[in-house]
Amino acid sequence: MNPPNLEAALTEWRAALGEANVLTEPEALTSAETATFATTQRIPAILRPSSTAEVQACLRVAQTHRVAVYPVSGGRNWGYGSRVPPRDGCALMELSRMNRILAYDERLAYLTVEPGVTFRQAYTWLKERGSPLFITTIGGSPEASLIGNALERGDGRGPHSDIFNHVCGLEVVLPNSERVETGMARFANAHAAPVNRWGLGPSLDGLFSQSALGVVTRMTFWLVKKAPYLNEFVFTVKEDSQLWEAMDRLQQLALEGTLRNSFFFWNDVKALSVMRQFPYEVTGGRTPLPGFMLEGFREEFGRWAISGAISAQDEELGTLLERRVDKALEGLARRLDFGPRPPDYESSFHGKPSDANLAMTYWRKKHPVPENPHPDRDRCGFIWCSVAVPFTSEEAREASAIATRVPRMFSLEPNVALLAVSPRCLYLVVALAYDRDEPGDDERAMACYQALQRELVQAGYYPMRLGLPGFPEELPVQDDSRALLKRLKEAVDPAGILSPGRYGF
Amino acid sequence: MNPPNLEAALTEWRAALGEANVLTEPEALTSAETATFATTQRIPAILRPSSTAEVQACLRVAQTHRVAVYPVSGGRNWGYGSRVPPRDGCALMELSRMNRILAYDERLAYLTVEPGVTFRQAYTWLKERGSPLFITTIGGSPEASLIGNALERGDGRGPHSDIFNHVCGLEVVLPNSERVETGMARFANAHAAPVNRWGLGPSLDGLFSQSALGVVTRMTFWLVKKAPYLNEFVFTVKEDSQLWEAMDRLQQLALEGTLRNSFFFWNDVKALSVMRQFPYEVTGGRTPLPGFMLEGFREEFGRWAISGAISAQDEELGTLLERRVDKALEGLARRLDFGPRPPDYESSFHGKPSDANLAMTYWRKKHPVPENPHPDRDRCGFIWCSVAVPFTSEEAREASAIATRVPRMFSLEPNVALLAVSPRCLYLVVALAYDRDEPGDDERAMACYQALQRELVQAGYYPMRLGLPGFPEELPVQDDSRALLKRLKEAVDPAGILSPGRYGF
Repeated sequence: MNPPNLEAALTEWRAALGEANVLTEPEALTSAETATFATTQRIPAILRPSSTAEVQACLRVAQTHRVAVYPVSGGRNWGYGSRVPPRDGCALMELSRMNRILAYDERLAYLTVEPGVTFRQAYTWLKERGSPLFITTIGGSPEASLIGNALERGDGRGPHSDIFNHVCGLEVVLPNSERVETGMARFANAHAAPVNRWGLGPSLDGLFSQSALGVVTRMTFWLVKKAPYLNEFVFTVKEDSQLWEAMDRLQQLALEGTLRNSFFFWNDVKALSVMRQFPYEVTGGRTPLPGFMLEGFREEFGRWAISGAISAQDEELGTLLERRVDKALEGLARRLDFGPRPPDYESSFHGKPSDANLAMTYWRKKHPVPENPHPDRDRCGFIWCSVAVPFTSEEAREASAIATRVPRMFSLEPNVALLAVSPRCLYLVVALAYDRDEPGDDERAMACYQALQRELVQAGYYPMRLGLPGFPEELPVQDDSRALLKRLKEAVDPAGILSPGRYGF
Repeated sequence: MNPPNLEAALTEWRAALGEANVLTEPEALTSAETATFATTQRIPAILRPSSTAEVQACLRVAQTHRVAVYPVSGGRNWGYGSRVPPRDGCALMELSRMNRILAYDERLAYLTVEPGVTFRQAYTWLKERGSPLFITTIGGSPEASLIGNALERGDGRGPHSDIFNHVCGLEVVLPNSERVETGMARFANAHAAPVNRWGLGPSLDGLFSQSALGVVTRMTFWLVKKAPYLNEFVFTVKEDSQLWEAMDRLQQLALEGTLRNSFFFWNDVKALSVMRQFPYEVTGGRTPLPGFMLEGFREEFGRWAISGAISAQDEELGTLLERRVDKALEGLARRLDFGPRPPDYESSFHGKPSDANLAMTYWRKKHPVPENPHPDRDRCGFIWCSVAVPFTSEEAREASAIATRVPRMFSLEPNVALLAVSPRCLYLVVALAYDRDEPGDDERAMACYQALQRELVQAGYYPMRLGLPGFPEELPVQDDSRALLKRLKEAVDPAGILSPGRYGF
């Protein structure tokens, strides 16, 4: 095997993509090396292919000259490591120039896109066509890539909240630059390619999610029909005990099919940090938030918020479903009244993306949230810790207790949400928000993340998504899956040139 | 590599499983070599392991002595090849002794089983416990294996009709006898193992469906809550044109969420062959069915039947949904009135398995359907041809035209159904039913199958499930997926001892 030869690779990448699409300027590289927490990895170059053929060419060069490549789609994996590769010396391959919408079908409700297509772009595209359909949106950045998010198995709002479960027909470039399509799409002229996920023979889609086995260059997303009746709800509860009772009742409503959209449990800190920034003016510049201030917010707002939406085919059906929800929460939770919505209001449960939640990343910053938020650039400190929890109050209570206790030990506010992405499983997502300009806070927040991740795993709650900080030790597996994954990686990438270190690869 | 050594393998298999669980009696082998169409493959032995450890032992011996193994769960893959392996000389590994129900949770609605657990067994088990939940059942044999069916990606009745999309936590023995668990189940003490399908890192479940990469020894099935309101419907239409219009309207009802259970379009021949056998007494023993007789049945019954079920949380909601369906089909279809159901009636849409559809396999037999139907044993001729079709009337019409025309060319009645397993995709399933005791019919039916499969593929409708007859030529792929699958197979089974020939492996 040849030793890595970056110079030779750069020459060939420039020939393949054009000078303008191989960046080596220090400013561009520094920016790409910056996440919302401390990182040390260096990136020698940024590659910007514009087509599947160019992605293949990039990987061919990478193989020849043994320079590893780390692909990102939109590069908005904020809180998980942004664009920064897990290992030093990987060329960053940005797919944002591949931003075409390739197919749309209104009757069959799908949209086929390239990895550069963002949530905002897809939303706008559908809106301009007056489409009766919407694409599931997320709580994160509107500039995030649909494909990038789906491959990380992100969660969204509405009935397709488990986004990766509602896609098919991936086009994938393998590390050896072979091109593969999944499901029926591999067959010539297969009419069912955008509507059948399984295809014939083994289903390969899952292999390329949270993975380092290929570069996904196309995906079909199944769209949802907008409901004539859509009503968002927010309930608040005053006491934890009410939350657990409400949670079990809502789980049963999800299981029976009354609640078909995803719904969310936010604690006080999370709600507060979306609405306001840290009140330095009251604390005299000191952190963390004093208990009395959180108490004050609880009095005003509540201890937990439960938000979601009821959708139905008409008012009459919708009213019946509302009644079931109201009855389930009677005596436990207070429903907030938003009053009439503006006529042009569009709900995130109908696909409207929003920057609103990004405010959270600025929680501890000493300047206001800018018009165009960009937490990497603005040195926001932000780390996500996300684990899967069975959807029962007992499990949720145990996991949230850890998520509440550990951040406090590190003088961070416990920002906790439980996302009901299915009737059986909650995602517990804990946000560690701090200010990277505060000396020592990068180290403290990372230590907190590691402690939190470790305690959650020890209690049986494993991550459902891992970012750059990864996991403090190897996760304790009880089978031979590690050997199998190693063998699969060697089968498609013997030289290890694709995303080394990602998800344990 | 050593040459295959069957005798040595048999000795070691007997030591591992006990004499009684390694069958080599000619009657047992002949029976296992028999499907519902002509086969020539010989089976040297039947292995009956009772545990995962015994499955591992079987594969270890198979590796050492290079004797290939073909695993089946219940062995009821009727119409696709029953238990018969694609290649000569494979030992048949039957998993029916592994029939334990390993876990059940009523709140989180799941059931974890071994591969020998049948639809009837799971149904009875839940019923005996008075469970408010049900497990999706199929149109096929109640003695079929839950796991075997799910791995073939079979379709069922109710909201979880795409069965493989509602399972998780597979335990798999690899050809090298390593043991792997999928999703969160690979991690020690992972609480979310039975409720989270994706786990962390690449999702491997799909790899082991329609596959020859491992032996699945455990799976968790997600259960559905029984709806307080459940009403089955059957509509009939007189003319094809009405069917297409009805189909498009129902597709929109499925997309909007009014129809959440699977539903089905059956043609006249299919309906007839479930209700009655071939009327030899009227035709004077001649086949195929004369046109005037089918016309007679159409007058009485209709050209197509549309069946499904409305389920809801109460009568009021159910009535509103019924109204939407009735309105959509107004003037197109006639709703059949079943009158009151017996008090102990339980619907297949609530998991009740039934032998009823198996009557179809006896359509051309000259003796009545026995109490305990077993089409292999009774020399029923029966071949399934199943393809995926986008859910529009135009596509359904084109595919059904082929499915109607081709069987007639071979003097077989066109037995055609379109199964709405999702709002985007139909499964077109064509049954070729004949009598294996009729000289020449085995050859004629197989020629018909090959012609039908070929014409459907040429028109862009590819199989979503393939049986032993496979495909006349290699399917035309347009990518490098064949090379990838080969590489994956070599990575886990370099000697090719697991299910050679299955799904192209």
